[in-house]
Amino acid sequence: MENKSAPVKTVPLVVTGFGNVGRAFFSLLREKREDLKCRYGLALDVLAVAQAEGCFYYGGPLEVRHISRGGEPWTSGNPSWRAGMKAADIIKETRPGGCLVECTLSNLETGEPGLSYITGAFQGGWHAVAASKGALVVGLPDLKARAAENGVFLKFSGATAAALPTLDVGLFSLAGARIEGIQGILNGTTNYILTRMGEGLDYAEALQEAQTKGIAEPDPAQDIGGWDTAGKILLITNACLDAAYALKDVQVCGIAGVSADFVRSARKEGRSVKLLATSAPGRKGGRWSLDVRPSLIDATHPLVHVNGTEKGISFLTDSMGTVTVTGGRSSPRGAAAALLKDIINIYRPPF
Amino acid sequence: MENKSAPVKTVPLVVTGFGNVGRAFFSLLREKREDLKCRYGLALDVLAVAQAEGCFYYGGPLEVRHISRGGEPWTSGNPSWRAGMKAADIIKETRPGGCLVECTLSNLETGEPGLSYITGAFQGGWHAVAASKGALVVGLPDLKARAAENGVFLKFSGATAAALPTLDVGLFSLAGARIEGIQGILNGTTNYILTRMGEGLDYAEALQEAQTKGIAEPDPAQDIGGWDTAGKILLITNACLDAAYALKDVQVCGIAGVSADFVRSARKEGRSVKLLATSAPGRKGGRWSLDVRPSLIDATHPLVHVNGTEKGISFLTDSMGTVTVTGGRSSPRGAAAALLKDIINIYRPPF
Repeated sequence: MENKSAPVKTVPLVVTGFGNVGRAFFSLLREKREDLKCRYGLALDVLAVAQAEGCFYYGGPLEVRHISRGGEPWTSGNPSWRAGMKAADIIKETRPGGCLVECTLSNLETGEPGLSYITGAFQGGWHAVAASKGALVVGLPDLKARAAENGVFLKFSGATAAALPTLDVGLFSLAGARIEGIQGILNGTTNYILTRMGEGLDYAEALQEAQTKGIAEPDPAQDIGGWDTAGKILLITNACLDAAYALKDVQVCGIAGVSADFVRSARKEGRSVKLLATSAPGRKGGRWSLDVRPSLIDATHPLVHVNGTEKGISFLTDSMGTVTVTGGRSSPRGAAAALLKDIINIYRPPF
Repeated sequence: MENKSAPVKTVPLVVTGFGNVGRAFFSLLREKREDLKCRYGLALDVLAVAQAEGCFYYGGPLEVRHISRGGEPWTSGNPSWRAGMKAADIIKETRPGGCLVECTLSNLETGEPGLSYITGAFQGGWHAVAASKGALVVGLPDLKARAAENGVFLKFSGATAAALPTLDVGLFSLAGARIEGIQGILNGTTNYILTRMGEGLDYAEALQEAQTKGIAEPDPAQDIGGWDTAGKILLITNACLDAAYALKDVQVCGIAGVSADFVRSARKEGRSVKLLATSAPGRKGGRWSLDVRPSLIDATHPLVHVNGTEKGISFLTDSMGTVTVTGGRSSPRGAAAALLKDIINIYRPPF
């Protein structure tokens, strides 16, 4: 229990978006309020929740009852709803040092609306943590530079496989080691489908089951097509290597063309077919190659036993050998926990 | 590449002990010198190497040629050898802010010589990183308090499964989550022996092979008896829960009594026998139970595929699900890489 007797620091937050992750973040904050004070000396108050058309804001800490009724956003007649109000304006009028919590569904091509939200936060001297990939896929190097200029932090564990600690391991645990390759199973939906195909279902059945169980989105194109995985391996590579690859540099092949026979026969041999994201150095120290594709992996591969909605990542290094992390909840709650972790690691004293 | 253009910060180090880990640390420092400057803005200079009888010290940065000849410590006739000189005296005479690198073979009952070295470093305003367990097993809570009083850091990744990031994950990646249980395979030697027993060797043959290959020590009692594992699960539990359990609180059973038939029949059923360290909460929120014992684990256990000299750890949490890390080099080089990581994470700017 760090800081048992330390004074509690109050941190204002602005949450952008109020979908599944935003809601889970609210629940988690409420559940963890006492624990955050006791263990980390932090009181996290949500000052505003931003939507496209305005903000929920009344000047005090928001709770779910200020924002939604019957599970739906409540605008009309809500005294906390300010139509037309912008997150950036609230941030500008609040003291620096707060944190933006980016939970929108940002577009992988334009980065919006996340890009504008994050940029606005930095201009107001606020840190940002992100669960959405769009802004980072489009402009990570630029955003990192802007964060540095403004003396603030940008963290995005929630956008890079949620509760699976991909960036923590790559940036913190492997400090001093040279990363010589990265491989990951970074999307729970496609891994679930491939796992079920290995167990006898055909592709359409497995997809249908994943949708029925709420694992796959109603429109699963980004997952199935490999683009969710591509965005994650891109962000992990750029962050861990301090590189500036773009989404167009990632060779992407999804799982729609994978035959059930192929998956099953691999399984009989103790091998496995996985949607594998790979980042590997080019020959002669040139550009790295990044790709996402269904891959047949051997029984000895460190990710071969990552099944169902589980994810995993393996870093090959020069001085620490291969370090593999697997697990971490794949759900809005897992993403919310990743956002909370990043916030804690921004504000806690060094340890 | 962080800090490409930042000024380089020179950090004085005192290394205590010059066994396999100390030597590997020297090699790694030499190999990484340019990389540390470029990526982290750090120049790490070893100012002294302390032995029981004196120090290697001449006022400038030490290299291996100042310390050993033909692989052996070189004292007689060596202008850099100062018989009777103490590490604490050198630290006292140097400016605060350096780092002690504790690589002795410290006793699990007395904590010495590591305990005195680390205490001396703190008194001089120096940080400490440790690859040895003794001092920490004996007095972690007290050492943490002393570090805090002196405004310095104590890190010990190297003592808690080396390049496998056990503490990083428990303290950093799981920030905000409640740890509800820890299980680990934390000793490479015993895991190697059990793996080979599953492949057909009997206990004596497997131990002999491990010794021949340099995996097991000539006197393997601490590993075989489970005490190395017990020390590690104790440190990981105390660090991650901010607890103060003692080695006597750990129930320890080693692998000497494990029958080869039992290991082989488990393997045939897809299960596995592992020397498992477990830390679990008591009923009604009471004291945790810590134990180390040969355990039969199922095919679905996250550590079931950790074979040979590999290690692994699994954290069960409330908000992030189960997070498992495996791999990380089990060797003096792996331990040296863990020491270097901790040093970097003490001195690098927050990111």
